[in-house]
Amino acid sequence: MSQFDLDAYLRQCRSQVEAALDRYLPQQYPDKLYEAMRYSLLAGGKRLRPILCLTSCRMSGGSADLAMPTACALEMVHTMSLIHDDLPAMDDDDYRRGKLTNHKVYGEDMAILAGDALLAYAFQLIAEKTVGAQPERVVEVLGRLGKAASGAGLVGGQVVDLESEGRTITLETLEYIHTHKTGALLEVSVISGAILAGADGGVVERLTRYSRCIGLAFQIRDDLLDITATQAELGKTAGKDLRDRKATYPSLLGYDGARDRAEQLREQAVAELADFGASARPLTALAEFIVQRRH
Amino acid sequence: MSQFDLDAYLRQCRSQVEAALDRYLPQQYPDKLYEAMRYSLLAGGKRLRPILCLTSCRMSGGSADLAMPTACALEMVHTMSLIHDDLPAMDDDDYRRGKLTNHKVYGEDMAILAGDALLAYAFQLIAEKTVGAQPERVVEVLGRLGKAASGAGLVGGQVVDLESEGRTITLETLEYIHTHKTGALLEVSVISGAILAGADGGVVERLTRYSRCIGLAFQIRDDLLDITATQAELGKTAGKDLRDRKATYPSLLGYDGARDRAEQLREQAVAELADFGASARPLTALAEFIVQRRH
Repeated sequence: MSQFDLDAYLRQCRSQVEAALDRYLPQQYPDKLYEAMRYSLLAGGKRLRPILCLTSCRMSGGSADLAMPTACALEMVHTMSLIHDDLPAMDDDDYRRGKLTNHKVYGEDMAILAGDALLAYAFQLIAEKTVGAQPERVVEVLGRLGKAASGAGLVGGQVVDLESEGRTITLETLEYIHTHKTGALLEVSVISGAILAGADGGVVERLTRYSRCIGLAFQIRDDLLDITATQAELGKTAGKDLRDRKATYPSLLGYDGARDRAEQLREQAVAELADFGASARPLTALAEFIVQRRH
Repeated sequence: MSQFDLDAYLRQCRSQVEAALDRYLPQQYPDKLYEAMRYSLLAGGKRLRPILCLTSCRMSGGSADLAMPTACALEMVHTMSLIHDDLPAMDDDDYRRGKLTNHKVYGEDMAILAGDALLAYAFQLIAEKTVGAQPERVVEVLGRLGKAASGAGLVGGQVVDLESEGRTITLETLEYIHTHKTGALLEVSVISGAILAGADGGVVERLTRYSRCIGLAFQIRDDLLDITATQAELGKTAGKDLRDRKATYPSLLGYDGARDRAEQLREQAVAELADFGASARPLTALAEFIVQRRH
């Protein structure tokens, strides 16, 4: 069995995604709006959500082209949430991915509007550009993306996160925050690729469990990195959780306890892929990447 | 031919829409988020967009139930745009529909998030709750709604509007602002009902022309009301355009010129309905309502 080269795979996926993002969102009138949208959308990043979507689509027998509009839409929703979370009325952050945040460059009004436009365009993109999927599958993906981006998903998580600042919270509340704030969109990233490719209910269930494990592991890793990584590595303010006395996995479970929990979750995620054989190697490697990433 | 009773029709539609909005968006956890969403969504208003959607669906042979999720989604997108437009970073308004604006009650962070959640939920609602339409028709409606809510639609209009404040602008720019800021969503309101009901391309084209006329007429009426109506009638700050030296139809065409233009547009809109006979009476009456409304 040849070794799966995750680095090469990530590089290749990333460059396909970057090209598609640029193509799907060309500069146009009104100029400043599209500049602001493109500034944050094309600012780099891991492109983890699109890559998960493309990978699960391929594993389920679909092509990358089939899932590309959805993959890019997921990145647009993610970018919208970052732009709005960084606003002065929310987390009030000046840097993101090593660059000034959207509102620092374009102003608060434009940052709010650029986020709104990215969110709405994500749905337009999937609806208009998906080719070769059954329409009922496209409707299902649109519905799940809407749920992941709304009060039942990332907005709900952000609200509870904001309300919890400076307060002692339970592990249950912490898990609510993360399964919603980051987990919901990661889950739909994995599931949507499989749905578009026509995967059956059993496959979707397994991938749902896989994605819940990696979603939580992703967040624990984020918390650990906030303690150990430097601002240069993160591209955003480091040590912020501690300074804000924010509840995190390390603060609730201890550093080693949190690290062990992430490793357990990786194992659980990979166990869900057992029946898929060699075709699951990219998703297996992605679970490992999530737990070991340095930024 | 019996006289069509528009007032009774509007009252009946409105009460159906209000009940559906309340049902589709029940109070839930996280409490403050859903309170904020419901505060603005259930704050009254003309419910013009949902009524246009239900009416064009019925005229095209569909039931009100078929279009109700889409009708409510249109109101959610409209409400999102009002909440975000009222923010201090944008128009900085304290009152809307005679009540304090969302951010004055719930804070800026919650107002931004309530808007985001309403926008995303609109797509979820259509995708999950539409029953009895062909899936490709649902995909088309979702794509058109996404476009109307994004940079090619209302956000684009709002950006150009913000950039034009205190500047002299041409009639062309003014029409860009209004065909995007209010026109795009009014257009998809009319079209989506017909699409869900299975209307053919010719019908959709006529309704597109109808909706462009009433969209512009709606905006001209808004500008005229800003001059003549009181704050009590409008439920928002009156005379604001003049104070902000904002370009409006009356400022470019004169009061009488603008009023005549609205009347011309009403006639053009009604002419598009000629072939539909008696079934077009509600849409005909709605065009009249738009040009004559007092708030």
